[in-house]
Amino acid sequence: MPASQHVSPKSDIAISQDAPKRPIVELAREKLGIAADELEPYGRYKAKVSLDFVETLKDRPSGRLILVSAITPTPAGEGKTTTTVGLTDALVHIGKKAMLCLREPSLGPSFGQKGGAAGGGYAQVVPMEDINLHFTGDFHAIGAAHNLLAAMVDNHVYWGNALGIDTRRVTWRRVVDMNDRALREIVCSLGGAVNGFPREAGFDITVASEVMAIFCLAENLADLKERLGDIVVAQTRDKAPIRARDLAANGAMAALLKEALAPNLVQTLEGTPAFVHGGPFANIAHGCNSVIATRTALKLADWVVTEAGFGADLGAEKFLDIKCRKTGLSPDCVVLVATIRALKMHGGVRKEDLFAENLEALEEGLSNLRRHVENVKKFGLVPVVSINRFSADTVAEIALVRDACAALGVEACVADHWAEGGAGAVDVARAVVRAAESGKSRLNLLYPDDMPLVEKIRTVAQQIYQAKDIALDAPVAEQLAAFQAAGYGSLPVCIAKTQYSFSTNHEIKGAPTGHIVHVREVRLAAGAGFVVAICGDVMTMPGLPRIPAAVNIDVTPDGRIIGLF
Amino acid sequence: MPASQHVSPKSDIAISQDAPKRPIVELAREKLGIAADELEPYGRYKAKVSLDFVETLKDRPSGRLILVSAITPTPAGEGKTTTTVGLTDALVHIGKKAMLCLREPSLGPSFGQKGGAAGGGYAQVVPMEDINLHFTGDFHAIGAAHNLLAAMVDNHVYWGNALGIDTRRVTWRRVVDMNDRALREIVCSLGGAVNGFPREAGFDITVASEVMAIFCLAENLADLKERLGDIVVAQTRDKAPIRARDLAANGAMAALLKEALAPNLVQTLEGTPAFVHGGPFANIAHGCNSVIATRTALKLADWVVTEAGFGADLGAEKFLDIKCRKTGLSPDCVVLVATIRALKMHGGVRKEDLFAENLEALEEGLSNLRRHVENVKKFGLVPVVSINRFSADTVAEIALVRDACAALGVEACVADHWAEGGAGAVDVARAVVRAAESGKSRLNLLYPDDMPLVEKIRTVAQQIYQAKDIALDAPVAEQLAAFQAAGYGSLPVCIAKTQYSFSTNHEIKGAPTGHIVHVREVRLAAGAGFVVAICGDVMTMPGLPRIPAAVNIDVTPDGRIIGLF
Repeated sequence: MPASQHVSPKSDIAISQDAPKRPIVELAREKLGIAADELEPYGRYKAKVSLDFVETLKDRPSGRLILVSAITPTPAGEGKTTTTVGLTDALVHIGKKAMLCLREPSLGPSFGQKGGAAGGGYAQVVPMEDINLHFTGDFHAIGAAHNLLAAMVDNHVYWGNALGIDTRRVTWRRVVDMNDRALREIVCSLGGAVNGFPREAGFDITVASEVMAIFCLAENLADLKERLGDIVVAQTRDKAPIRARDLAANGAMAALLKEALAPNLVQTLEGTPAFVHGGPFANIAHGCNSVIATRTALKLADWVVTEAGFGADLGAEKFLDIKCRKTGLSPDCVVLVATIRALKMHGGVRKEDLFAENLEALEEGLSNLRRHVENVKKFGLVPVVSINRFSADTVAEIALVRDACAALGVEACVADHWAEGGAGAVDVARAVVRAAESGKSRLNLLYPDDMPLVEKIRTVAQQIYQAKDIALDAPVAEQLAAFQAAGYGSLPVCIAKTQYSFSTNHEIKGAPTGHIVHVREVRLAAGAGFVVAICGDVMTMPGLPRIPAAVNIDVTPDGRIIGLF
Repeated sequence: MPASQHVSPKSDIAISQDAPKRPIVELAREKLGIAADELEPYGRYKAKVSLDFVETLKDRPSGRLILVSAITPTPAGEGKTTTTVGLTDALVHIGKKAMLCLREPSLGPSFGQKGGAAGGGYAQVVPMEDINLHFTGDFHAIGAAHNLLAAMVDNHVYWGNALGIDTRRVTWRRVVDMNDRALREIVCSLGGAVNGFPREAGFDITVASEVMAIFCLAENLADLKERLGDIVVAQTRDKAPIRARDLAANGAMAALLKEALAPNLVQTLEGTPAFVHGGPFANIAHGCNSVIATRTALKLADWVVTEAGFGADLGAEKFLDIKCRKTGLSPDCVVLVATIRALKMHGGVRKEDLFAENLEALEEGLSNLRRHVENVKKFGLVPVVSINRFSADTVAEIALVRDACAALGVEACVADHWAEGGAGAVDVARAVVRAAESGKSRLNLLYPDDMPLVEKIRTVAQQIYQAKDIALDAPVAEQLAAFQAAGYGSLPVCIAKTQYSFSTNHEIKGAPTGHIVHVREVRLAAGAGFVVAICGDVMTMPGLPRIPAAVNIDVTPDGRIIGLF
């Protein structure tokens, strides 16, 4: 993570490269009791834990699950991944057997501007340059499986189109793990009869693939294959769905994903075991690591810390209403990460003025944190607030946040894991243990399965975003009715909207109420098992900035990667 | 390899999966003296040998290099890869310290119809299903590096086009490791200003990427980065070249390829060490494994067997005139693989009549083998003919081939490694040892560096293909003159033409003479360091067949891959 707000004497990549790392085979044996032959090593510091071994854990008791989420993100940064890493290391500091589960970073943004996603400072998973580049190849496997299906769709049309695919209604795009705006909208199959039937098509970034979402929700290889078969790739002229199964593509797709499905084991800078596995988009998908990694971690450790994308209105809501709903997983505590800086931005302070104390703006911006606290409580879960410390934070500012949380009956602790590693987050760790051991968390899903799709969308909008209502254009309403009629009514909904506001306008900070959530488009993810409701602009293929990060990424003749951040 | 001509009680994949495999770390230590910490294991049976270790070998003496090539391929199959594997195992049988170097298979054809490329029967490198699927991720890394450069080209244009790229003259396409004809010709950047400037574009399969060719010719990481920088991606309106270096893309591309550049170590079914590394197309590129793998093998073993793509007119010619020219490598013997069946097809027999003895047709078809033998001799090298045995071969037929070879002063041996492993190829191994130890091989490159490009093409056509002459349209001649003027005149040429004939007409079997080689197009591969001359139709993006192999590929719930061949 680019910790642009911190001034460090050392870059993230230098900290990672200089860190003494334990051979992963030793670490797995000593800390998790995994024998060497249950691991598939990828180099010395990364390994996949075999699915056979995962299967043997089924009847073990499960540890406690801690979900790390955050306030609504701002350009000031929150530090959710560093908190996930630091908190887990801190749990080890206070004597707990802990591990963490993160998403795998996408390659594209590493060459764009977002940077990697392996934490930062002294709260990182390592080796960060491997994790941020190809890692164990999972995303490449997901891309290959996705694109095999795409090739088989056009190939079917080419060779006679026995299924009667309407080439105007092919919804299955292609993917590449690269930020490449030129591929967003293309016309393919040009150049004459030997190349097929020209049609409009396009590419998404690999993390936006439904295969990625399926991969992260699959319980095992057999479940993966079935879900892949359920993918709807196109319609006939009569609007009948064409599935991956109809093309006999899902077996080969599962074969391509077989190795990838085993969870990836790495370590934090402090030698705490970490699964980094799967990474679906948090807008059009559910935005958290694989079910297999989370379940396996819960069998191997007493405390498992995991992260959901974006703010709690999106990431936590989807974690709970999609991942937990489908799997029976249930967090024992939800950590809400906040920074004084970001809260001040929610209170109207401009980025250049963040260094000055401003208690009024902070009080104003606390509305955002309060809303997220209330939302977590609506789910029946106990929140803990972790204030990710920055050097400009004042004593009075921190006291104000603590008091505001205390008034809500919520513990708020200051964390400084970025500079100090796990030692910097022991207060948060203790608060998390108290919250989890209180036994007060009892997950209430926001809506029942049998609520109609349109009502589910309305419920999320009103309950979580505090919107007045939703608005649907006629074609969207018809499409939802069609999904309902086709038997998909019991699926949860996955709302894609800006992560920068509770509303659908990314400029509205704080805690807006009374807004209307306009649903522009709905899409069926029949394999993943949810209906996506797109509200506002959602980009499934990013572009590169004017000066891509790639320009500064390099490798020395002796093989040291530089410029990754 | 699909051994469609053989009837086996067991599929290739079943043989591979049932084979007792040695842990690669043990095998590397015992057979090659490589310590465990010089390896980056990828699972238990695959490992990359660290580039640091490779560097330490520099001053060791080199072993003998044996190049396996073949007659002109026919649908009857030759078995070049199985011969490479079987011969190496056979060298071990007769007491030699041997290893082999192969290309990595491309993922696309595994799902199409060609099948994998890890050998077949009892002459395979294993684990074949891993090698044929993602292996160690090298091709994915090459694809990512290629597509990063492509994204940076369009991104540069998008953000103001300071370099003045003429979007009509962008020659850098995109790649995907999939057979996908729909991507051959596209229009990209549609959808309005936010997606860039619409232009014609397209995809090749990853093995056709110049990055692949560069990867396979690079001496080390620094050389790789320089060559990547030399890639010409486009021209300005004044036809000035735009290079990857001008976009500052080559550092990040090299960073993406850093891990991949270390050679992949696996084993044969008999436990002989094998490098499987890199895999450029044999038409528009030079078609053999990486220089790093070949060099490293020569430092680790006394005998190294390697393979070049297609028949000797294409694969061996490029191996010698491109790879050997650039590196100083030089084979001690060239094995020409032939089958009675294929020779009979060269003599005019139809596929359905191959089971009957036909000495006249065989004699006729021997013209093809004779031409290849002569060509190998033109290079100053000693050929050995390996007759890959099939059950229908008769005693008289085999005698005819042996006699024909004897008349040329060449040893011909029957090999049955497909059924018997290394034990089936000891006669070939002994002949190879005799040929190599005779010391008679002295490589003569076909043309000097300073011969003009057009004369180089003519020389290959006349000397190797026995063409009467070449024909160039005016624009092609102009383009060659422009390359010459721009300082690329000293590069070798890489001729892309059908592999099924010495001529450019794939239907002309045997040993045609007096034909004209029509050069349709020339392309500069400035990073790889050769000029491609395209003669006839060359496909850089295959399509899937009516029933793709993918339809039968599957994985069982316990993770066993089936249907790969």
